[in-house]
Amino acid sequence: MLNETHDPSLTSWVPATLSDAADFPVQNLPFGRFQLAGAQSASVGVAIHDAVLDLSGAARAGLISADLAHAVLRCEDGWLNALMALPPALLSQLRLELSRLLRSGSEAEDRLRPLLLPRPGVLMLKPVDVRNFSDFFTSVHHARNAGKLKRPDNPLFANFHTLPVAYHGRASTVCVSGTDFIRPHGQRLPDGAADPVYGPSIAVDYECEIGVYVGRGTALGERPALKDAADHVFGLCLLNDWSARDIQGWEAAPLGPFLAKSFLTSVSPWIVTLEALAPFRVNAAAREAGAPALLPHLDHADDRSHGGFAIDLEIGLTSAAMRQAGQAAITLSRPKFTDQYWTIFQMLTHQGSNGCRIETGDLIGTGTISGPREDELGCLLEATRGGRTTFALPSGETRSYLADGDEVTLSARCAAPGRVSIGFGLCTGRVLPS
Amino acid sequence: MLNETHDPSLTSWVPATLSDAADFPVQNLPFGRFQLAGAQSASVGVAIHDAVLDLSGAARAGLISADLAHAVLRCEDGWLNALMALPPALLSQLRLELSRLLRSGSEAEDRLRPLLLPRPGVLMLKPVDVRNFSDFFTSVHHARNAGKLKRPDNPLFANFHTLPVAYHGRASTVCVSGTDFIRPHGQRLPDGAADPVYGPSIAVDYECEIGVYVGRGTALGERPALKDAADHVFGLCLLNDWSARDIQGWEAAPLGPFLAKSFLTSVSPWIVTLEALAPFRVNAAAREAGAPALLPHLDHADDRSHGGFAIDLEIGLTSAAMRQAGQAAITLSRPKFTDQYWTIFQMLTHQGSNGCRIETGDLIGTGTISGPREDELGCLLEATRGGRTTFALPSGETRSYLADGDEVTLSARCAAPGRVSIGFGLCTGRVLPS
Repeated sequence: MLNETHDPSLTSWVPATLSDAADFPVQNLPFGRFQLAGAQSASVGVAIHDAVLDLSGAARAGLISADLAHAVLRCEDGWLNALMALPPALLSQLRLELSRLLRSGSEAEDRLRPLLLPRPGVLMLKPVDVRNFSDFFTSVHHARNAGKLKRPDNPLFANFHTLPVAYHGRASTVCVSGTDFIRPHGQRLPDGAADPVYGPSIAVDYECEIGVYVGRGTALGERPALKDAADHVFGLCLLNDWSARDIQGWEAAPLGPFLAKSFLTSVSPWIVTLEALAPFRVNAAAREAGAPALLPHLDHADDRSHGGFAIDLEIGLTSAAMRQAGQAAITLSRPKFTDQYWTIFQMLTHQGSNGCRIETGDLIGTGTISGPREDELGCLLEATRGGRTTFALPSGETRSYLADGDEVTLSARCAAPGRVSIGFGLCTGRVLPS
Repeated sequence: MLNETHDPSLTSWVPATLSDAADFPVQNLPFGRFQLAGAQSASVGVAIHDAVLDLSGAARAGLISADLAHAVLRCEDGWLNALMALPPALLSQLRLELSRLLRSGSEAEDRLRPLLLPRPGVLMLKPVDVRNFSDFFTSVHHARNAGKLKRPDNPLFANFHTLPVAYHGRASTVCVSGTDFIRPHGQRLPDGAADPVYGPSIAVDYECEIGVYVGRGTALGERPALKDAADHVFGLCLLNDWSARDIQGWEAAPLGPFLAKSFLTSVSPWIVTLEALAPFRVNAAAREAGAPALLPHLDHADDRSHGGFAIDLEIGLTSAAMRQAGQAAITLSRPKFTDQYWTIFQMLTHQGSNGCRIETGDLIGTGTISGPREDELGCLLEATRGGRTTFALPSGETRSYLADGDEVTLSARCAAPGRVSIGFGLCTGRVLPS
């Protein structure tokens, strides 16, 4: 449902001079959590062009209506959870009020100006107290590419087309963009060895994903219907599910990945709301020929046109040597979220389909997003065929997996004809030596 | 380390008339969270014979020393997390003070009496805000029995002897004993069918486990040493990892169990501290002949005698028909925790061995505890060979998996020569019709 907040003719009075200012036009208005240098407590913020609006300050100053201000101020410690739990209609009202305050011609400009902080001076924090993190496996291209490495004749398991496969990830190590991590230790089986060794992973990889934050939760035993799934989605972010392929290879039978994934999961600081993404909803990817019919509870049927999002992702890499030489990041890949086989609404519906309680602040990862083309692969496992091939960097170095000092940056933009594009900001992380 | 709180000659002035009063002698002193009928808020409690001591009340009344009272009262909402985060030395001090207050001859009896509540009148709540739930797979008997059903010639995967296998479970559905659950829905592949169906599971099972609560956490990138693992353990509870075997069979490739486990995990309300368990620590189970040498970071070496716990478990069952006929529960199995292949300290060390942050309030499940004998199996998957055999109930009914109305009760006792036995209380749950 589009409304006045999506109007492409709207502009904002807030300056747009930063290189990423175009990610945050007045049509976007994503939420985040920030801390001012030297401040003790965190606040809720909204990104707008070059600035962060201190939403907590705006609430205290009476610039938004009382019931919304009350909800914002309940986010006392800055976590967005209290805000995310609001009914979609109230969140929509908040978006409308913010749009009217921040658009060109607003009468509140003078009162808002003291509440605008230059984004480069603001420390962005993890936005949400993540209660549960589930990571899915919903790109058929990724599943097929990864499966081929082990099972060339039968890369997809039989369940791939009937349910969005997933596992529970580690909530405690979901960290905000910019959190670097020590190369993880773990057990791996060297080629040809009979017994594993324990030490630093030699196959550290990224996985380019979208994260989905749950707003309103469900009760134990409730099973949300697919048609209502959107009511439980607060918004989307970028997510890097860092993975140690050698650790994964040894540990994962029979219960799935554990330490190979739990050392860090990075999320972008800004959450783009489902409402901001409304102009970019498109048809979900087509089902594959010969796939079994969907079971009714996972079938979008004629509602399928609401399932996809026109989000173009980009994966960039710099090495320490590249940064030292002043070389810009190289683009490793440009996956498209429209290639995803299962929709985020099917994922959420599946998550709750056994009666599992879904909580405000839950994070759902889509799994690695890969397209059909070689320049649309979402992780190095696919790009280098399980580490068997290498690629060159401008510094003259080569890579099959990540080296110490490598920094991976995810970014994403949404575009649609006649619409103002919006972006997600960045999701970065760097591998530190062990 | 044993101290005066373990003295077997100690008795308590609190009456012991209830059938389970012997679970909670003054040598035990487990912690829980409770709510009085009609009360708005939860409090921290300690079980002693027939009673619950209102520890929050004792703190307010100045009956424990000031720094401990401060920690108890920080558990404002009743969650034990603030208490669990205390250094082991302070927790030990609290145990000593409680022991002195509650033992026969205490001068505080008159002041404490108003703070003692009859256990049957007290509603026990989930004790801990569980941040992350990891479930392990550390009984070699369970692993072999379960593996044989699919791979008769090769039941154990190669990694079983080199690391404690685990997966992340669902934190949001960890519920306290007494929480009944609707038979979960899910996808299953009927025998001989090409495509799955969605509906109520026809293979609902229990799994008898011990739960381990983390006290002090670790920082991101820290890797706790095995010798320090005990400093991170607050205490143990009973845990039933309810499982839908048909859902698990269809969904688990390639990322492990997800919806088959996430509908409910039951925990007993009382947490028995590691210090209370000190008299019952024994040798860990012997390694199997021919197993590869342990990697150093998981090797107890001469410290191995600290790894095991003499805990005897019991699994009881009643059906609706049995309860209607006034028939007592039948004992399905009596697993021994001493048969466990990996210790709880190896599990915690493994969990942190990649640098994963471990948080106060994390819950680690041991996985199904099974012994080598037929009457020591920890789940029905093993007892009925994947549902292929049945067993009889006193009501004339038969079972291969659980029927609607079935109630499973886990209990456990610790015994050692010359020591006062302690118990864990009960962990119950009932299957409700879908």
